[in-house]
Amino acid sequence: MSGSLLSDMLARISETGRALIGGDEPAPLIERAEALLRADGEATGTARARAILDDYAALDRDGRAAFLAQMAERFATDTAALDAAIAAYQDAPGPDTARALHIVSEPRSQELLRLMNRAPGGTEALVRMREDLLAAMRADPGLAGLDGDFRHLFSSWFNRGFLELRRVDWQTPAAILEKIIQYEAVHAIQDWSDLRRRVGAPDRQLYGFFHPALSDEPLIFVEVALTAEIPGAIGPILAGERATLDPANATTAVFYSISNCQIGLRGISFGSFLIKQVVEELRRDFPRLSTFVTLSPVPGFAAWLAGAGVDVDTLGRGRVVPVAAIGAGLEGGAGIPGDGVELPDRARVQAARAEALSALAAHYLTAVKRPDGGPMNPVARFHLGNGARLERINPDADASPRGQAESHGVMVNYLYALDDIERNHEAYAARFEIAQSSAVRRLARNAPLPA
Amino acid sequence: MSGSLLSDMLARISETGRALIGGDEPAPLIERAEALLRADGEATGTARARAILDDYAALDRDGRAAFLAQMAERFATDTAALDAAIAAYQDAPGPDTARALHIVSEPRSQELLRLMNRAPGGTEALVRMREDLLAAMRADPGLAGLDGDFRHLFSSWFNRGFLELRRVDWQTPAAILEKIIQYEAVHAIQDWSDLRRRVGAPDRQLYGFFHPALSDEPLIFVEVALTAEIPGAIGPILAGERATLDPANATTAVFYSISNCQIGLRGISFGSFLIKQVVEELRRDFPRLSTFVTLSPVPGFAAWLAGAGVDVDTLGRGRVVPVAAIGAGLEGGAGIPGDGVELPDRARVQAARAEALSALAAHYLTAVKRPDGGPMNPVARFHLGNGARLERINPDADASPRGQAESHGVMVNYLYALDDIERNHEAYAARFEIAQSSAVRRLARNAPLPA
Amino acid sequence: MSGSLLSDMLARISETGRALIGGDEPAPLIERAEALLRADGEATGTARARAILDDYAALDRDGRAAFLAQMAERFATDTAALDAAIAAYQDAPGPDTARALHIVSEPRSQELLRLMNRAPGGTEALVRMREDLLAAMRADPGLAGLDGDFRHLFSSWFNRGFLELRRVDWQTPAAILEKIIQYEAVHAIQDWSDLRRRVGAPDRQLYGFFHPALSDEPLIFVEVALTAEIPGAIGPILAGERATLDPANATTAVFYSISNCQIGLRGISFGSFLIKQVVEELRRDFPRLSTFVTLSPVPGFAAWLAGAGVDVDTLGRGRVVPVAAIGAGLEGGAGIPGDGVELPDRARVQAARAEALSALAAHYLTAVKRPDGGPMNPVARFHLGNGARLERINPDADASPRGQAESHGVMVNYLYALDDIERNHEAYAARFEIAQSSAVRRLARNAPLPA
Amino acid sequence: MSGSLLSDMLARISETGRALIGGDEPAPLIERAEALLRADGEATGTARARAILDDYAALDRDGRAAFLAQMAERFATDTAALDAAIAAYQDAPGPDTARALHIVSEPRSQELLRLMNRAPGGTEALVRMREDLLAAMRADPGLAGLDGDFRHLFSSWFNRGFLELRRVDWQTPAAILEKIIQYEAVHAIQDWSDLRRRVGAPDRQLYGFFHPALSDEPLIFVEVALTAEIPGAIGPILAGERATLDPANATTAVFYSISNCQIGLRGISFGSFLIKQVVEELRRDFPRLSTFVTLSPVPGFAAWLAGAGVDVDTLGRGRVVPVAAIGAGLEGGAGIPGDGVELPDRARVQAARAEALSALAAHYLTAVKRPDGGPMNPVARFHLGNGARLERINPDADASPRGQAESHGVMVNYLYALDDIERNHEAYAARFEIAQSSAVRRLARNAPLPA
Repeated sequence: MSGSLLSDMLARISETGRALIGGDEPAPLIERAEALLRADGEATGTARARAILDDYAALDRDGRAAFLAQMAERFATDTAALDAAIAAYQDAPGPDTARALHIVSEPRSQELLRLMNRAPGGTEALVRMREDLLAAMRADPGLAGLDGDFRHLFSSWFNRGFLELRRVDWQTPAAILEKIIQYEAVHAIQDWSDLRRRVGAPDRQLYGFFHPALSDEPLIFVEVALTAEIPGAIGPILAGERATLDPANATTAVFYSISNCQIGLRGISFGSFLIKQVVEELRRDFPRLSTFVTLSPVPGFAAWLAGAGVDVDTLGRGRVVPVAAIGAGLEGGAGIPGDGVELPDRARVQAARAEALSALAAHYLTAVKRPDGGPMNPVARFHLGNGARLERINPDADASPRGQAESHGVMVNYLYALDDIERNHEAYAARFEIAQSSAVRRLARNAPLPA
Repeated sequence: MSGSLLSDMLARISETGRALIGGDEPAPLIERAEALLRADGEATGTARARAILDDYAALDRDGRAAFLAQMAERFATDTAALDAAIAAYQDAPGPDTARALHIVSEPRSQELLRLMNRAPGGTEALVRMREDLLAAMRADPGLAGLDGDFRHLFSSWFNRGFLELRRVDWQTPAAILEKIIQYEAVHAIQDWSDLRRRVGAPDRQLYGFFHPALSDEPLIFVEVALTAEIPGAIGPILAGERATLDPANATTAVFYSISNCQIGLRGISFGSFLIKQVVEELRRDFPRLSTFVTLSPVPGFAAWLAGAGVDVDTLGRGRVVPVAAIGAGLEGGAGIPGDGVELPDRARVQAARAEALSALAAHYLTAVKRPDGGPMNPVARFHLGNGARLERINPDADASPRGQAESHGVMVNYLYALDDIERNHEAYAARFEIAQSSAVRRLARNAPLPA
Repeated sequence: MSGSLLSDMLARISETGRALIGGDEPAPLIERAEALLRADGEATGTARARAILDDYAALDRDGRAAFLAQMAERFATDTAALDAAIAAYQDAPGPDTARALHIVSEPRSQELLRLMNRAPGGTEALVRMREDLLAAMRADPGLAGLDGDFRHLFSSWFNRGFLELRRVDWQTPAAILEKIIQYEAVHAIQDWSDLRRRVGAPDRQLYGFFHPALSDEPLIFVEVALTAEIPGAIGPILAGERATLDPANATTAVFYSISNCQIGLRGISFGSFLIKQVVEELRRDFPRLSTFVTLSPVPGFAAWLAGAGVDVDTLGRGRVVPVAAIGAGLEGGAGIPGDGVELPDRARVQAARAEALSALAAHYLTAVKRPDGGPMNPVARFHLGNGARLERINPDADASPRGQAESHGVMVNYLYALDDIERNHEAYAARFEIAQSSAVRRLARNAPLPA
Repeated sequence: MSGSLLSDMLARISETGRALIGGDEPAPLIERAEALLRADGEATGTARARAILDDYAALDRDGRAAFLAQMAERFATDTAALDAAIAAYQDAPGPDTARALHIVSEPRSQELLRLMNRAPGGTEALVRMREDLLAAMRADPGLAGLDGDFRHLFSSWFNRGFLELRRVDWQTPAAILEKIIQYEAVHAIQDWSDLRRRVGAPDRQLYGFFHPALSDEPLIFVEVALTAEIPGAIGPILAGERATLDPANATTAVFYSISNCQIGLRGISFGSFLIKQVVEELRRDFPRLSTFVTLSPVPGFAAWLAGAGVDVDTLGRGRVVPVAAIGAGLEGGAGIPGDGVELPDRARVQAARAEALSALAAHYLTAVKRPDGGPMNPVARFHLGNGARLERINPDADASPRGQAESHGVMVNYLYALDDIERNHEAYAARFEIAQSSAVRRLARNAPLPA
């Protein structure tokens, strides 16, 4: 509601401003940006900013990249002023001269971004502009400085205190729901029926962060299933036909999908806040919930296996895995012939393969590191950094082509144990210590790595 | 609505965060601020920030001033890092080293403010904190640097694009209406009946800017009367008993009171945006409106007259003012005896005094300047800077004690002529040129200044 | 929100309809009502109905009474048709001929009311019209039949399923809050500060029923105090300065004022639904609440005492009340001299008087009956009929002039014990059995009635 | 919003009520209805009513029909009381005895329906129950009396004054939008993309009536296209790819689909109110609109043609239609060979066939009547009864299988000329006079009817 009032209002002020200006503005875009930066007429400034943003949006890809490059070059720090400020600081070092130096050294592009942000719809236009910038940076790393300006301002504008948590359900306007379909990045939403299953069922919830200046655009959202136990596979959660659980009886909340929605906000972190706040919402609404856990993908696992020389096709074959370790998943797991058997039966091979994959995944997630000492796997970094614990490895958890390609179907559960979050987080932050269950630890020790 | 969801949510996350921390934190506040700045645990950071803000709010005036002074001193720029960055820049001057210098030279207090802004209710707490800071600065001018940090961040957080225009009327929640009563700074609202007359009558409107993070707190508001002509006095507008005009027949919108609400946002300018946007709202809702004008006080006029040696008590006496110039206000204005009359009759004296006061006010507003060349009168600076024109001087326009004390009852109309706003603004911005009606210009020429 | 949309819409259709009609309608109102009843043009019917309601509202008191009398006379049952229907029924008695008889016997006034209810704002206008009717009935009892038509239709239109329970608090629009001030019928609200104490404090709640067609008009509301014990006096609850209780720690919800708002809805009962539903709301929001009780006035008690010949001024004097029965209220209650004391000391007299008044009130509420067997006291009838129990008599509970005049300051608590409500209700409904605590029963037995 | 509060509230009171009752109620449903009717315990009454409605809903089709038959039989008028009331009336005929007779003759089923309507969700359950009743009436016409009770009460509960007009667009909750998809009865909505084209495009609008007690259920809705001219075919309006018109430039509003949503409300008329009010909404939002017109199907036309012995396959062949009458639709319409041509060319045949179909449709709509004198075609009855004029016949207007089967592709425009609506309506109501354009009148005269 307030969102639409806001946008109405913004639209109106823009029209006004434009009406006030009148005439055409045929000057090159970068010159108009310069004029905007020099002028101080507030109402016309808003309209001019909007006009610049519109005309920018009408450019093609190369035109935009060119404008961004001009922006980076032309609106850098004013070095003459900077040199003077350095001299003044060195003359009389102290907080005031340092602060003066700080002010003078600000790249002019920051003020330009602030002025453009005043336009109606300006915030959204700048998020889109940074999307272009990130793309252009791949060809022109010199744009990194300008990207730093965006990131600095976005951190301030999209700070936690300005975000609004909203539950998205079947009463949500279609305009927002279609964005959810579009932005779901982990387990694609097939159509409106699939969406309805995810937001309309009593044992399913979806929460997102929104920003007042981007009212119909989610920034990030998380999908939650309320269940009676920690799930070991994604299929049953997404199934079209399934028994519904009365949420009042649920004990477990499963975060089975987290999607960042705005490429232009890359590097501005919302996920940690989101999970913790959704935990609070859920605890309040469903007091019986006691377990908060993810069902997470393991992107990069298959690639790492390949790089490590593990032949996944033969995993579980030709190597006897102790049956005792295989667990309940194995049908007819008993009755392994003691000798003379060249080829294990199918079920036994499958179980052995699952066991081996699990062990390798445990190893990958806990022992394969980046140069900085953190785990190689980005999802692990996110949840472990948030204070979660790596709880369980689930082979055969994701039958989708993507799940097979990325991780041979392995998914994992990270557990958010409320009493341990802070300790886990600190141990990870200080020493990259990885919180893990004893089952995971045991598995990792048995990983069948090639010599 | 979204406001209250937001605040609910913020309250919840705070409780969470606090629950996660547990225990007491007996360390001094400034040490805890230091710890907040060093830590990076997000959820606990939010709760720690909230705890710091709460404990700050519980301090007395001296305790707060002391904390602010510590903040200014302790969280200045890291000079060792700055010196290194200067060296690097001087080694290789360029945009990147300049930007690095900018980042390093940022006073640490800015980041601390950003972290505190993440707390639930953080934005409002920081606005209150700056209120304290502005008070403390009077005794300790050394706090000006820290104030600059607040102002810099507030400009970014309270930028035009994030503000929401709301009409306030008799359907508005009482929680907001009582703030309107409290904040009205020009013509005090006596009680709820007076308020109802100002927001509930069909020919009265009140609009304010709100910020999503301060949901029940107006930032600035303007009161509007819809009338059939430009009014010359405030009394009839505020009268308890008066005939109501069908707003569909109104031709004139009178901005008769503008109040900034938040001391802590001093220097962050909203008024210009507000007036222009309210003009748009009114034009849309009442297409017959063609005149947009203020009825404004002239604070400082009486003080200036006193300083200039004008004896207001004898104005209009003993000095023959050309009757022709007096205008229609004078009853029986004709028939002035040509000679031998020592003392004019009462009506003539009043008219002459009104004429003289008007002329002096015209002079004061258009010719009495600050060192920078702008008019001395702050209300004139605001409206002329916005592109309005000084249209008319109204003697005997404000019978209230305050109106008498400040300006001997003189009020003025500034006219927002939509076609001229931009030109007026630019002429003022470039050369402090003052847009004025020919009547005002004529009056100013005749101002009976003491030799 | 939906309310204002609805009323906007209604206003619009009315204008349309009126525009469609054009011209004047100088015919007498009753003729226009006749025409409305005969016509079947839907859109114009709506506009015609609105015009009739407006012109009715513009009549003075006598004019309205005359119109209502005409309505009662002119729009009675069509007797010719009725006679035919009777003949048909008697020819062939059965459900169909009975139903036909029912339809034909409907007074035409009912259909007229239905048609007027279609107009924008029609429902509210009809509620006001019945207010006039109730006043006119005092002089003209012959209007009772027409009143029956109103009551019949209002019962259907204001049925429980169409009512909306809303919490009224300090976020409620002022337009509704001023109605609360106006309608409070038990303990008058002095001003907006008093109102704020009743709706804005954390341990105070106010709930009302609203109807979609009367959006800003409460139908009935109840005020609730959350406390730590059953209160014995109204003063502390309404006090301007008092300690606030954290509602999370409250154990007791006290319904201390219930006001019907619409005279025109007299006889349409909402109170029983309201209390029971508010109990549910409170239990959900404050799970620690275990006691739901009223603090109720005893109107009629003083009048009954006077009629019964009880001299209240001498109550407690000259008659020795057993000290043991007086209770803790008496300071120094022990040590009453055995003999020679002509006049008890002041405290003892007061205690004895309080005891005697309490006993008389217990007797009045439980033993003084109407011809139908129900208690004489209307408040008792309401709460006992709802299934509550008369729990406690509180002398010196209401120091207000009204409380003194009506009941010499006595107030009582009715307890809503959830497990007993149904049983109490049924015993009362079947046999006027009065649920009461043993303390009340004991008191009633000791009532010092004149011989 | 208010809707969902209402339903929440209703759900809660139901739970309460049920909790208050406790235990099972194994008595037959009809006995429980009898008990409900006899009891007067309000809160338990609500819960009992809800329980009856739930258990009714759980019955199969036969069980429901049986219950309805029992209801019709058992809850008829109390004939003993009726006989007494008749005697009293005949003793002393007059308005009061007639009114008493009316009250006594009411079938008890009406009061039962009122009591069930008090239950949470009661109104919706009763609408569903009437749906069952209408189905059961086909086998058991004796249920017509009970149906009359439903219709009588629904007319009162769903009166115009209680309905809410809402615009449905892409910001509308999905829960309502999916109902729109489900209920569209004229031009089926294929999927969410099709829906989005109909509610999300700037030149498309959809309005519906809603009732507060059925908050997410539209009662009736109309789809509107804003265009530059009166359209002659439905295809371009529904096309997936089409140019969008700026609605500010539209001159014509086309009502191209009207759907009643609730079978259980059959006979309760909303359409006339809806169209007239939507006209008002549109005029306010788009002041340039000057033409309000439908694009309507002609159901029954094909069946009537078949019955009338018209061989549609040979229409336009073997019979020379005056070229002048064919109009612009015919390409190369000139140059008809004068002689020797056995078979006209394809275009000519098509044009002739279109002309003949149009003429027959004009005849069908204006001259083919029901016994009561109104037109046979139900859509014509609806719009002509509303005061519209039959403006234009469009052959080849609906290529869908249904359009072909129902009317060989003919559609028509009814024009709502605001100045004529009332006159048209009255002429139709009084004399079934059919407002029509001269073009339609001319066509009808030339209808090639078989001898």
